[in-house]
Amino acid sequence: MKEIGIGIIGLGTVGSGVWEIIRQKGKELLARSDVELQVLRVCDKDSTRKEALGISGSIFTDSWEKVVRDPRVSIVVELIGGMHPAKEIITSALQEGKYIVTANKALLAACGEELLGKGEIFFEASVMGGVPVVKTIKEGLVANRIEKILGVINGTANYILTSMEKGSDYKEALQEAQEKGFAEADPTLDVEGWDSAYKLSILAYLSFGVWIKPEDMLVEGISKLMPGDIEYARQLGYTVKLLAIGKKKGDLLELRVHPALLPLSHSLSGVKGEFNALFIKGDEVGEITLQGKGAGSRPTASAVVSDLVEAALFNLKGTTHAILPPSASLRLADAQNLPLRYYIRFTALDKPGVLSRIAGVLGEKGISIASVVQIERKEGEAVPIIMMTHEARERNLKEALSEIDKLSIIKKETLFIRVENF
Amino acid sequence: MKEIGIGIIGLGTVGSGVWEIIRQKGKELLARSDVELQVLRVCDKDSTRKEALGISGSIFTDSWEKVVRDPRVSIVVELIGGMHPAKEIITSALQEGKYIVTANKALLAACGEELLGKGEIFFEASVMGGVPVVKTIKEGLVANRIEKILGVINGTANYILTSMEKGSDYKEALQEAQEKGFAEADPTLDVEGWDSAYKLSILAYLSFGVWIKPEDMLVEGISKLMPGDIEYARQLGYTVKLLAIGKKKGDLLELRVHPALLPLSHSLSGVKGEFNALFIKGDEVGEITLQGKGAGSRPTASAVVSDLVEAALFNLKGTTHAILPPSASLRLADAQNLPLRYYIRFTALDKPGVLSRIAGVLGEKGISIASVVQIERKEGEAVPIIMMTHEARERNLKEALSEIDKLSIIKKETLFIRVENF
Repeated sequence: MKEIGIGIIGLGTVGSGVWEIIRQKGKELLARSDVELQVLRVCDKDSTRKEALGISGSIFTDSWEKVVRDPRVSIVVELIGGMHPAKEIITSALQEGKYIVTANKALLAACGEELLGKGEIFFEASVMGGVPVVKTIKEGLVANRIEKILGVINGTANYILTSMEKGSDYKEALQEAQEKGFAEADPTLDVEGWDSAYKLSILAYLSFGVWIKPEDMLVEGISKLMPGDIEYARQLGYTVKLLAIGKKKGDLLELRVHPALLPLSHSLSGVKGEFNALFIKGDEVGEITLQGKGAGSRPTASAVVSDLVEAALFNLKGTTHAILPPSASLRLADAQNLPLRYYIRFTALDKPGVLSRIAGVLGEKGISIASVVQIERKEGEAVPIIMMTHEARERNLKEALSEIDKLSIIKKETLFIRVENF
Repeated sequence: MKEIGIGIIGLGTVGSGVWEIIRQKGKELLARSDVELQVLRVCDKDSTRKEALGISGSIFTDSWEKVVRDPRVSIVVELIGGMHPAKEIITSALQEGKYIVTANKALLAACGEELLGKGEIFFEASVMGGVPVVKTIKEGLVANRIEKILGVINGTANYILTSMEKGSDYKEALQEAQEKGFAEADPTLDVEGWDSAYKLSILAYLSFGVWIKPEDMLVEGISKLMPGDIEYARQLGYTVKLLAIGKKKGDLLELRVHPALLPLSHSLSGVKGEFNALFIKGDEVGEITLQGKGAGSRPTASAVVSDLVEAALFNLKGTTHAILPPSASLRLADAQNLPLRYYIRFTALDKPGVLSRIAGVLGEKGISIASVVQIERKEGEAVPIIMMTHEARERNLKEALSEIDKLSIIKKETLFIRVENF
């Protein structure tokens, strides 16, 4: 077992989530990584937050310097966001030889090249919350030259565009997003494309190896769009998305953020609401798409904790990830006994009374019918009868079908397909 | 710079791809990982393959024992598949203290628990080809308890079901898949669900920590389905997919592979043809989906090489992944000069001659019109006119729109949206 000291700076939505995950799941993380994450310092300007989170006064401070200078702290988690004092915190901590875990996309987009030159910074949480896009490009696709990236990477803008697809105008959609917590009181960074541009800057570094600042890119937002545009686009075979686009053609790099018409057949066109997705084209792997929630307390904290484990393993060297050992009592469910819904295709003679005989046998076995469709009519001949059931046990279903298939009105073995409602 | 000796056993479609990637991209991999992968031994039963791939006789052998016993080889890449002699190769190599990289899903499903207890085995390539699902679950989602996994993880079956959606019957669809190289001459393992079950066994280990053998799961294939089933399901609001399902509810684990009705609104219902996708629900991150090609020479080799870099870094300790340095000549493209297509919304008076004046200005700037739609008609009033252009330079477009917006027939600033055709 190896212990590693951690300091968390910033107890906003993400910082609180990180504190809670480590507190609730310390044992599981230890089992999966052989590393014990010990939170030795927590810093926030607002000392009232410590009570709500059950943080003891002995580790709480309102001075980030105390975290950065604590020799027992090996990893500093910067979660205050913005340029200052985030940059000073990271610079000081790197000078002290500490590792950094951060979700600060604006700072990385502005100063990533400078900061990454000074030490080890882990930043999975800076792009698409808990969806491991940084790890995927950096490690999973290490054998690939990335040719294109295409991202729906701002949940606020995508939520608004999805509402506009349903007919809301821009102002209504924005207000709805604000009410549901998907847009901030000042939504400028999100709706005008800057948040996407910060993330594109980081993705372009990972994919193409260069740092390009957002102000050098083409960046446009969605505030001028009308619901009509989205409807006309749909009639033409397109959706409208706020896209972050990176393409490398020879020595020429295209980096742009703007609303775009995307063919309805494209895998990103189905990304709705607050979801994010990134489409990546690599020369070996072809096209891959990663999708998930790009923001929120726990999804983003999930990425921070993944980086914390990564940083701890890297710091302590020579260890790797393990798989969580299961609880001793975990056992495989009996598939014959699960409550599932079923699609059933009977092939039966088309004559009066057939349905009641089938339904009678099903009823005896406790299987109730949700709907019946008989599509073709050919009196006196065999036709398909389609039934959807309510939840039933497969054992009972099979017994019922075995009886039904013995009836003279059934002309072919009955087929059933299980329904998955996720 | 650190060198690491590699032995490749098996020069089939994946093995050839691995050899070619290392040969073609050795320098880039070195730049990204600070590790030089040196292929010191290559083994295949068929010695004619070495000529086609330009492998020198000095490193080629038809004896796997020579690879496993070579003290200069630190990592053995097993790519022959099947149970024997793959199991003997891996067991011997682990005994020699070597690391293993493998794509052998059948062997892992049968003997994963035994083999992983004996040493370090990297197996990203065993599930979903180049899509990093193993890394995602093991590392990216380390902070999560996985609640559900749902996968379309057999490209052959999905290709057939996609053809059946278009009306082919099962036999026609299978034959088409075989002709296109998406199905093998004996497709049993793929269409009867066993290949998915092997992968589900590995995914369940990663997600839930237990090894369950495929023969203990519910496994059913797609060969009994008719095109009618898929059509009826669609009318009921569902697609039919061959799903691999894992769910943990308390101490009860469900593992099943079978055709299932999945709501059309689910993110997996849009996975078409030979594509694979995995939906994962974690308690912190929520729902994430990974999609890509699950098979093929280079996509699978992409995952093998990613594992090779991982294994090399782990073996050599204390190093991590880096970002590829860009070529010195890489530069940002001028966004005003890209050839893009545009959607344009004019707000113009509805009267004769308006279109020809707009088209005239566009024509002067070299912008040609692909289509025009005027949806509303209100003579003498301002209505939207929607135009799609052929490829044009944004600089020219902006000049044209600036002139057009000065015309008295234009009643509102014209809006354009760029079209992305990926």
